[in-house]
Amino acid sequence: MVEASGRIRIGVIGGGQLARMMVPPAIHLGLQLSVLAEAEGMSAARAVDAVGDYRDPETVYAFAETVDVITFDHEHVPSEILRELECRGVAVHPRPDALQFAQDKILMREKLEELGVPVPSWAAISDEAELQAFIEKHGGRAVVKTARGGYDGKGVRVVSDAAGARDWFAALAEDARGGRLLVEELVDFTRELSQLVARRPSGEARTWPVVETIQLDGVCAEVLAPAPVANPVTLDEAARIGRVVADGLGVTGVLAVEMFETRDGRVLVNELAMRPHNSGHFSIEGSVTSQFEQHLRAVADLPLGDTAMTAPAAVMVNVLGGPAEGPMPVRYAEALAAHPRAKFHSYDKQPRPGRKVGHVTVTGQDLAQVRQAAQAAARVFD
Amino acid sequence: MVEASGRIRIGVIGGGQLARMMVPPAIHLGLQLSVLAEAEGMSAARAVDAVGDYRDPETVYAFAETVDVITFDHEHVPSEILRELECRGVAVHPRPDALQFAQDKILMREKLEELGVPVPSWAAISDEAELQAFIEKHGGRAVVKTARGGYDGKGVRVVSDAAGARDWFAALAEDARGGRLLVEELVDFTRELSQLVARRPSGEARTWPVVETIQLDGVCAEVLAPAPVANPVTLDEAARIGRVVADGLGVTGVLAVEMFETRDGRVLVNELAMRPHNSGHFSIEGSVTSQFEQHLRAVADLPLGDTAMTAPAAVMVNVLGGPAEGPMPVRYAEALAAHPRAKFHSYDKQPRPGRKVGHVTVTGQDLAQVRQAAQAAARVFD
Repeated sequence: MVEASGRIRIGVIGGGQLARMMVPPAIHLGLQLSVLAEAEGMSAARAVDAVGDYRDPETVYAFAETVDVITFDHEHVPSEILRELECRGVAVHPRPDALQFAQDKILMREKLEELGVPVPSWAAISDEAELQAFIEKHGGRAVVKTARGGYDGKGVRVVSDAAGARDWFAALAEDARGGRLLVEELVDFTRELSQLVARRPSGEARTWPVVETIQLDGVCAEVLAPAPVANPVTLDEAARIGRVVADGLGVTGVLAVEMFETRDGRVLVNELAMRPHNSGHFSIEGSVTSQFEQHLRAVADLPLGDTAMTAPAAVMVNVLGGPAEGPMPVRYAEALAAHPRAKFHSYDKQPRPGRKVGHVTVTGQDLAQVRQAAQAAARVFD
Repeated sequence: MVEASGRIRIGVIGGGQLARMMVPPAIHLGLQLSVLAEAEGMSAARAVDAVGDYRDPETVYAFAETVDVITFDHEHVPSEILRELECRGVAVHPRPDALQFAQDKILMREKLEELGVPVPSWAAISDEAELQAFIEKHGGRAVVKTARGGYDGKGVRVVSDAAGARDWFAALAEDARGGRLLVEELVDFTRELSQLVARRPSGEARTWPVVETIQLDGVCAEVLAPAPVANPVTLDEAARIGRVVADGLGVTGVLAVEMFETRDGRVLVNELAMRPHNSGHFSIEGSVTSQFEQHLRAVADLPLGDTAMTAPAAVMVNVLGGPAEGPMPVRYAEALAAHPRAKFHSYDKQPRPGRKVGHVTVTGQDLAQVRQAAQAAARVFD
């Protein structure tokens, strides 16, 4: 990966805040980062070298010729394009063979079961009758998910009646590729956990401490790092599952495994993301090596960094929606004065209800105090 | 400074590594950073929006029209240009009235004496006879410095004979503006200290812990943060001096005050820099708010951040010269594998003997161990 010139060129497809937050560690390490953005003026604008549609093969192939390795801000680049890139000799990380499990939730469930990883009861269903049967078997309610394209609570519904997914079945019927929906039991969980893992093509892997994530309407609102120890066994189990998934799926780069901790002490995998993830933003200040730096190291096949915490506790609170009058800096006079220890991250996005426009992280000795401080700092932007 | 749009546009004149290291905090905070670089392909290339000569008034005026405030990667922009910018209503930080003391060492010595700040014995001299008289009065040796343009040991000579500065006097004689040299006693110091201070236009100021700097041939080689406590009185005195200088000179942005700790327990000011400084690079990982983030906050007149250490000790070691075969990443396979806790910073510069091409920082509990680790990690690039 390292050319004789000492230039390592990493191309990121997608210009959102994840690509944006890869820029600082690329600058520090002296890696050359280029972004292919969907449009002008996106969050990662400072590193954008190309603008175009990631679903257009020629756009992606042309971009790939300017870099040494391709990686991602999101999981939506079609598999066919990525496989063709590999045929042309381009390094792609995560590889399409791994990425497919983050792109298709039914494939993911099948693969996790094959690996013996605990997941909620599930089924792939083609019509309302199958959905109704599943609902009745699982206590009268279930979670229906589109297999592809969902994020932040989109493409996920809790239903108590098969009619609740009628429009999705109709949409599938009109799709020439056909397809099925995923249905799952409604898990009785006490909290949600996330395990971040980074893995190099050579197999070297590092995990961060398991974190607790707090969701609001299906969107991550807060992350507590490390997760408070309610039951040490479940935290060890979460860490074990993270490593099994990373190895079993052959993930390269950063992997986030989102999990439910159930009332009866089990840990079940909910979702996977094969890229830096909201549950790892705390690591920018909270870890010796952040998820963004580690992702760059991993996809460039460079040795991974230490993932120890820099302080006993770190709490990240998302800024959702943002100030009515514009991006976060419109409130900096107040926010920075009142919260000198808080670290503010603005994604340079215009406000929109529920939109992730930034986040705030506080690190310190005591989780409860740190959490209160991070919440108060984020609240300035409401 | 904050526009209704929430965009705060900061323009940096100079495309070196200091401008480069302002980019990460600008991205995190969501500030718009633009760089006017001397040439293409400089260290801060990722943020370069204009290329041109900072000594050309029209180039600087045109650049200033694209931003809300002008600040600097170096002190070499002519005062006349900066004063004209202020006349045109452009915010310039540090202001030319303050910056002149960093641009001209004779002005600086005069001003510091006026403020009652302890400095080495000195004189402004116009010819060899005056130099010879100073040398004889101060034990047969002295330090001669050009008043303007020196850095990293350039423009500084230890002489025991007036002939040792003959070429500099000849150059001054040919310069239509005339000018004098600065001569100083050779201070019998035990170590060098540096106090970083950040100050807003409104007067709010924050200091970082005093650090010890270790020079090699006039170039900073290592920084120990905080400075080991040899004599607590001298550290308090160094901190007091830093604040007096920042206020007394009306500095805005980051100020570095480099000082000698003498064998007889005094602290004398050696040099000033009105910008982020090599002695503050440790703060990227070692402080809650780095000098680069703080500089941006200060020049944008935003409230300053906490400057507490993130760990009991941080040591920064410069990579001087760099690997013969290219920028630092050519050695990353070895360096990153052997030193997972070290943070590597490459300025993306080609190697040249003695050139600062990057640095390495390690933080931890024990200064001696941290120092050893940082030295070992930096040595990989020799």
